[in-house]
Amino acid sequence: MSKLTEAANGVYVISVTPFDETGAIDWDSLDRVTDRYLEAGADGLTILGMMGEAPKMTADEAAEIVARVIARAGGVPVVVGVSAPGLAALKGLGLKAMDTGAAGVMVAPPGSLRTDAQIRGYYAMVCEALGRDVPVVLQDFPLVTGVQISDEALGAIIDDCPSVVMLKHEDWPGLAKISRLRAAEAGGRRHISVLCGNGGSFLPEEMARGADGAMTGFAYPEMMVEVVRAMNAGETARAHDVFDAYLPLIRYETQPGLGLAVRKHALWRRGWIASPALRKPGAGLDRETAAEVDRLIDRQARRLEEIG
Amino acid sequence: MSKLTEAANGVYVISVTPFDETGAIDWDSLDRVTDRYLEAGADGLTILGMMGEAPKMTADEAAEIVARVIARAGGVPVVVGVSAPGLAALKGLGLKAMDTGAAGVMVAPPGSLRTDAQIRGYYAMVCEALGRDVPVVLQDFPLVTGVQISDEALGAIIDDCPSVVMLKHEDWPGLAKISRLRAAEAGGRRHISVLCGNGGSFLPEEMARGADGAMTGFAYPEMMVEVVRAMNAGETARAHDVFDAYLPLIRYETQPGLGLAVRKHALWRRGWIASPALRKPGAGLDRETAAEVDRLIDRQARRLEEIG
Amino acid sequence: MSKLTEAANGVYVISVTPFDETGAIDWDSLDRVTDRYLEAGADGLTILGMMGEAPKMTADEAAEIVARVIARAGGVPVVVGVSAPGLAALKGLGLKAMDTGAAGVMVAPPGSLRTDAQIRGYYAMVCEALGRDVPVVLQDFPLVTGVQISDEALGAIIDDCPSVVMLKHEDWPGLAKISRLRAAEAGGRRHISVLCGNGGSFLPEEMARGADGAMTGFAYPEMMVEVVRAMNAGETARAHDVFDAYLPLIRYETQPGLGLAVRKHALWRRGWIASPALRKPGAGLDRETAAEVDRLIDRQARRLEEIG
Amino acid sequence: MSKLTEAANGVYVISVTPFDETGAIDWDSLDRVTDRYLEAGADGLTILGMMGEAPKMTADEAAEIVARVIARAGGVPVVVGVSAPGLAALKGLGLKAMDTGAAGVMVAPPGSLRTDAQIRGYYAMVCEALGRDVPVVLQDFPLVTGVQISDEALGAIIDDCPSVVMLKHEDWPGLAKISRLRAAEAGGRRHISVLCGNGGSFLPEEMARGADGAMTGFAYPEMMVEVVRAMNAGETARAHDVFDAYLPLIRYETQPGLGLAVRKHALWRRGWIASPALRKPGAGLDRETAAEVDRLIDRQARRLEEIG
Repeated sequence: MSKLTEAANGVYVISVTPFDETGAIDWDSLDRVTDRYLEAGADGLTILGMMGEAPKMTADEAAEIVARVIARAGGVPVVVGVSAPGLAALKGLGLKAMDTGAAGVMVAPPGSLRTDAQIRGYYAMVCEALGRDVPVVLQDFPLVTGVQISDEALGAIIDDCPSVVMLKHEDWPGLAKISRLRAAEAGGRRHISVLCGNGGSFLPEEMARGADGAMTGFAYPEMMVEVVRAMNAGETARAHDVFDAYLPLIRYETQPGLGLAVRKHALWRRGWIASPALRKPGAGLDRETAAEVDRLIDRQARRLEEIG
Repeated sequence: MSKLTEAANGVYVISVTPFDETGAIDWDSLDRVTDRYLEAGADGLTILGMMGEAPKMTADEAAEIVARVIARAGGVPVVVGVSAPGLAALKGLGLKAMDTGAAGVMVAPPGSLRTDAQIRGYYAMVCEALGRDVPVVLQDFPLVTGVQISDEALGAIIDDCPSVVMLKHEDWPGLAKISRLRAAEAGGRRHISVLCGNGGSFLPEEMARGADGAMTGFAYPEMMVEVVRAMNAGETARAHDVFDAYLPLIRYETQPGLGLAVRKHALWRRGWIASPALRKPGAGLDRETAAEVDRLIDRQARRLEEIG
Repeated sequence: MSKLTEAANGVYVISVTPFDETGAIDWDSLDRVTDRYLEAGADGLTILGMMGEAPKMTADEAAEIVARVIARAGGVPVVVGVSAPGLAALKGLGLKAMDTGAAGVMVAPPGSLRTDAQIRGYYAMVCEALGRDVPVVLQDFPLVTGVQISDEALGAIIDDCPSVVMLKHEDWPGLAKISRLRAAEAGGRRHISVLCGNGGSFLPEEMARGADGAMTGFAYPEMMVEVVRAMNAGETARAHDVFDAYLPLIRYETQPGLGLAVRKHALWRRGWIASPALRKPGAGLDRETAAEVDRLIDRQARRLEEIG
Repeated sequence: MSKLTEAANGVYVISVTPFDETGAIDWDSLDRVTDRYLEAGADGLTILGMMGEAPKMTADEAAEIVARVIARAGGVPVVVGVSAPGLAALKGLGLKAMDTGAAGVMVAPPGSLRTDAQIRGYYAMVCEALGRDVPVVLQDFPLVTGVQISDEALGAIIDDCPSVVMLKHEDWPGLAKISRLRAAEAGGRRHISVLCGNGGSFLPEEMARGADGAMTGFAYPEMMVEVVRAMNAGETARAHDVFDAYLPLIRYETQPGLGLAVRKHALWRRGWIASPALRKPGAGLDRETAAEVDRLIDRQARRLEEIG
């Protein structure tokens, strides 16, 4: 499988990890949801991210998921989340993933980092440990990590680490950060790919600011595919029409903590996974919340029909 | 002016504090925006909240704003944000506000509180300091305060403090919290008013869960007024139609930090305030962001026409 | 090996994990430092704690360390730190450790927990996952975890979870917490063992408050052994004399982040480990700091001679 | 009164604010404690710091304390803490303090700052608001503020802001930071004064690293005076002997939150203030803790006699 480069673009779906009601990995559903993501138009997949419940896996499970999805994806690039409290585990999973055929690895900063120099130093160490041949996606998600990566720190990392080829952008607010990064590139900084997360909740604006696509796991990846396509084609109004039709559910799915249960509920309702179960300590939706999500899905379907 | 009670409901608009380009308070704009809020159908106003840039005011300015808005509001209830690091300042502003005719005061927990007992103890102390006659609105906004108020802590406060008559609800996710509070009331707990914040971003669902209305400052308060009215009238589809039309801008305005500049830009574009300026350290919108907001406002207007 | 019970007491040394300069585990040094801890009078050992650089190990390394130390310790109880972001890894290592002959496991709360109910729920889940036969040490270390465990939450956990037999106490300030826990036990709550951490920096006072001993890794474990012995024998003045002689170094070793490098430097100077190296991202002492530590050790030796 | 400069050195005592049992300011005790600090050898005073319970004062009380202490100090330099959530209050109190004769103002960063650029921008704004003629002390206290100021950010502030003449150093661990700052000055950076806080718990080492003295409020300021004198005189052993004698109490007084009550208890036992009361929400010592402090004070007196 080819490796991730700075030219990567389009929609990389953050894959869920399906479980059965006992908490065991549901391998059939993992195959099916992989297929569905690709049928929906995904250009790549990202597994073992936060929303893939990565920290709940044992090391053996993680390795098995990597192998299973890469085999199933049939050559479509697969990025593997390898964030870990320690460098040994990060490097261990990262190199194993690359050996298995991953296109690259994704690394979020540990919550203890504070200053620009600490953040820069961390990524230098990570990239050195992984080696120059392992493409790295920098996940910038302050709401969850607690780490605020400044323009200066991000720029320094890009300068320091040639293997950082992509930013998974989910700073919030974060639109101006994309503009400033692209302006720095116009001024000579090395170009990297920017794929945006946060459930897609600012996708049209992010594309207008210079993002290359989306890397997120909203339960209707066809939204990301169509918005990215339309924005690239200059069909701004169309992009917003599609986006707005999905926005009520996007908003609902973006709720921290609860969001993954919403996403799995929707994927289960679509028949993409056999159970909406999360592995503990995660919990599923209560009856009232599930009904709320169902009503949003129904409204969404009607609105999509209206806009055609 | 009559005081706030547990029966309060409807829309309390979180008022901005208008400044001119030098950072001085623009009193004419304060009068005008007060008028516009009331014309839009507000049932009450809340001043000197976080989005009213309260911490940036001197003590004298705060007192003057309280007097000005209460006089202008002509009997409509005005809630005054009095959160402060120390009890002396909180009590000082609170009692002065009540003397001036405020309907009640709003208090967010200081960020140092962690355990249920600490949070409960803090509100007991605040209510004792203010005295039994000062109605208190508990602002529950973990994203900003960093303080997570559990159901148990909230219940204990309601039990302990008869003067806590309202919850300004902006926990996120927070829908189930409303349901659990209402369930506890069905089981015998004292009923309090629940008005919801977060820029209105979950207003239809919050009303369905048992909220009594909204207390937030979205730049188009007519959205809150119509959604609350429609939900109370059982016109759920209408409520969602209106809400969905505004949602792209609501989403944009809910960005932490940036949101107030977006709100002031929209209010300025509407002619409700003479300048979109924030007082330092706040900053206004850059050109690209302002254009983005303008496009959202234009789309919003078209969509509102479509739904009638 | 016998399992940990509520009656555990004395000194459990938090063991370092020795590395060579390349970052590889130095198994000979691990054997030697294990021996030295026991010769110094340790009643037990705790491995793979935060100061054992646990998060930097791979799963295989962790398992190997467990086996090695338990075998070497020859029947002395060994507690194994198993804190992990996810329950699967925690349970996996915990059960493997118990199978290998561990006396119990130690679990710190994940940093995302905030409310009493969340903390209580977390430990209920952990204890259920491990099963009733696995003794659990609750590590209460807010400075590092960010989780403040109130008296109420701690009491609820003790009530809920019979397998929680020990508190590793390192709240700061935390003396009154010991007194309140012992008062609650006098009022009928189940008694648990309390061993104190924080590098021993309040050990005489903790013993006077009702602690059962120390669980910490200060580089001179004979200090803990003698202070605990003296306090138990009613020799308060002696306990303080010994403690005070070590206090300048205790203070220096308690510096967050830096402390482990200080500890390893002292153990290396003593010949207990062959290298003071930390595994990355940890770093050793710079020359100036090392000299400072050396001077403190020299003063400490002289003061110990004076007090006899 | 003359203004603070980069050449400031010696001991600036962080003054308590004495209250009576009702929470009212005890002006007589404020006069007396001011006198005692100066008799103990203080080179300056710092009022309205965190340990002066500044956030609990009303604006009027703060102004009155400033005037009272400056008048009483009779020309000894007085630094005034003016940290506030908003710039208007900070500037208001700062300029008023300078008009009253303060030597300078002290500003800690608000907890919302994260990146180097944000911290640098904040101090640039503060210094611009205060004007070039107001000497500023930068308080670097991450344990309480949550803001980690890197060497780079600190250096940039020194370069940007000529009015920043002093660092109140209480980063922890922080010794190497002093060394790095002095090394940068050797390399050409503007020299500023460094006075150290943290209750004096690393004072001998800080002096050896290049600090100019102490700015902290330990209840026995004669400790700081003698340690600073001895270190400046090259009497290192004497400095450590004195320091070690006080260290058990220093350690006890450095407990976060509890520490101020310990300090006020000791000052009250010395007869320097008429009541150990803190203003709410602070609380005094319980009986057991008070007895513990008393025993430490007694041991300290005996040890001081031994060393002469």
